[in-house]
Amino acid sequence: MTPQAFRHQVRQGGFRKPTAGVCGDYAQANLAILPQAQAADFMRFCQLNPKPCPLLGVGEPGQWQMPMLGEDIDIRTDLPGYYVYRDGERAEERVDLRDIWQPDFVVFAIGCSFSFEQMLTQAGVPLRHIQEGRNVSMYRTNVPNGRAGPFGGDLVVSMRPMVSRDAIRSIQITSRFPAVHGAPIHLGDPALLGIADLQAPDYGDAVTVHADELPVFWACGVTPQEALRSAKLPLAITHKPGHMLVTDVLNSSLAAF
Amino acid sequence: MTPQAFRHQVRQGGFRKPTAGVCGDYAQANLAILPQAQAADFMRFCQLNPKPCPLLGVGEPGQWQMPMLGEDIDIRTDLPGYYVYRDGERAEERVDLRDIWQPDFVVFAIGCSFSFEQMLTQAGVPLRHIQEGRNVSMYRTNVPNGRAGPFGGDLVVSMRPMVSRDAIRSIQITSRFPAVHGAPIHLGDPALLGIADLQAPDYGDAVTVHADELPVFWACGVTPQEALRSAKLPLAITHKPGHMLVTDVLNSSLAAF
Repeated sequence: MTPQAFRHQVRQGGFRKPTAGVCGDYAQANLAILPQAQAADFMRFCQLNPKPCPLLGVGEPGQWQMPMLGEDIDIRTDLPGYYVYRDGERAEERVDLRDIWQPDFVVFAIGCSFSFEQMLTQAGVPLRHIQEGRNVSMYRTNVPNGRAGPFGGDLVVSMRPMVSRDAIRSIQITSRFPAVHGAPIHLGDPALLGIADLQAPDYGDAVTVHADELPVFWACGVTPQEALRSAKLPLAITHKPGHMLVTDVLNSSLAAF
Repeated sequence: MTPQAFRHQVRQGGFRKPTAGVCGDYAQANLAILPQAQAADFMRFCQLNPKPCPLLGVGEPGQWQMPMLGEDIDIRTDLPGYYVYRDGERAEERVDLRDIWQPDFVVFAIGCSFSFEQMLTQAGVPLRHIQEGRNVSMYRTNVPNGRAGPFGGDLVVSMRPMVSRDAIRSIQITSRFPAVHGAPIHLGDPALLGIADLQAPDYGDAVTVHADELPVFWACGVTPQEALRSAKLPLAITHKPGHMLVTDVLNSSLAAF
């Protein structure tokens, strides 16, 4: 199925599940929507923190199309789930934003680790959370984000355990893809990031870590969601976790070299 | 000083020291010279083991010039020190090979970690052995080399301790330079390579490893010397450790991308 056909299916209500594995050759994106009054600060936040917040596309105020990511995208209907936050609290879950769309909304599409996981899998690097049928392990760290306006908070990371040969290979591969979090930000001792227990992730599921493996940590797309929440904006919208925007952008086209 | 001027100085007996730091922008090379009868096997050995034995240049039988590495090189006189091995034992140390040159000698020039260390230093990655004024730590591992004819043995590695951020950066940088050992082959637990004690290197000096650092291991140019020795050839010649061939090849020109 093409990304376009998939988005049409979502738009017509025919798909309301997580998008992991959908149209695997194409980039998926994290979504953030906020009023123009806060958009400039949020864009500066992303620019300051490119590893957790790599911008794939930013819409013009009021624009629900995203022509840079796909010809007929309607961001109001083409994701299988949305969360609406009011004053920093999750107020509502939706499958359609048309009723609440505002002419001052600015859309941010942020790169997603699904893209580099596809590259790792194609290179024969096993991913434990996929082997074990779980969500990736994610942790809050003690590494502060660069601050912009009301947006700050600490970096959130995802963790994939690997033998060192695969860790080295995965650094090489993900370095080529800065638009989808790029190289890891740390590997080895979790305590150096302020993570006390790998088996107690703050988001996602715990996975098995073998004695001959290193935990490898990437900047995570949950970071901007945390920043949005902690900013306690009157109104902000994100995708429902795992329910991403499927774009027409080939993952392979995101390689920086 | 140009590499050509430096080699002239060595040729005239004006330099008999290690070449670390000499003509830093230019690649230095490990040297192996052996009779044509064993040269094909040794070349296959290098091809099988490209990480410890990246070939920068191979001479024609009897040829003491190396035009691919520098216009006027005389390999018999242009290194500040040579070791001569007979039946696998070091028999002699020399500063000139002209008296013992044979028309069947084949010269191998093998990439050297000095090149990538220059790239790491330029990128702001500190190297502990340089900070502490020591030789890099090197270890025999339990990783068998690919065998070719009489050449085999186990991989030798060099180790540089780094915080994870520098380890990731050094993987990115050295991956660009496969001609000078390329990316690390391991990082983290030394026991996984059969190394019992980092403070007891088999070659070079021990260096400080801090609690927040990972040991990062690269394939080492001592590996082919070990293979030459263990093959117990009637006659083989190498550079004296640290006393390298200084070539006209810019380190930066060795970048694969």
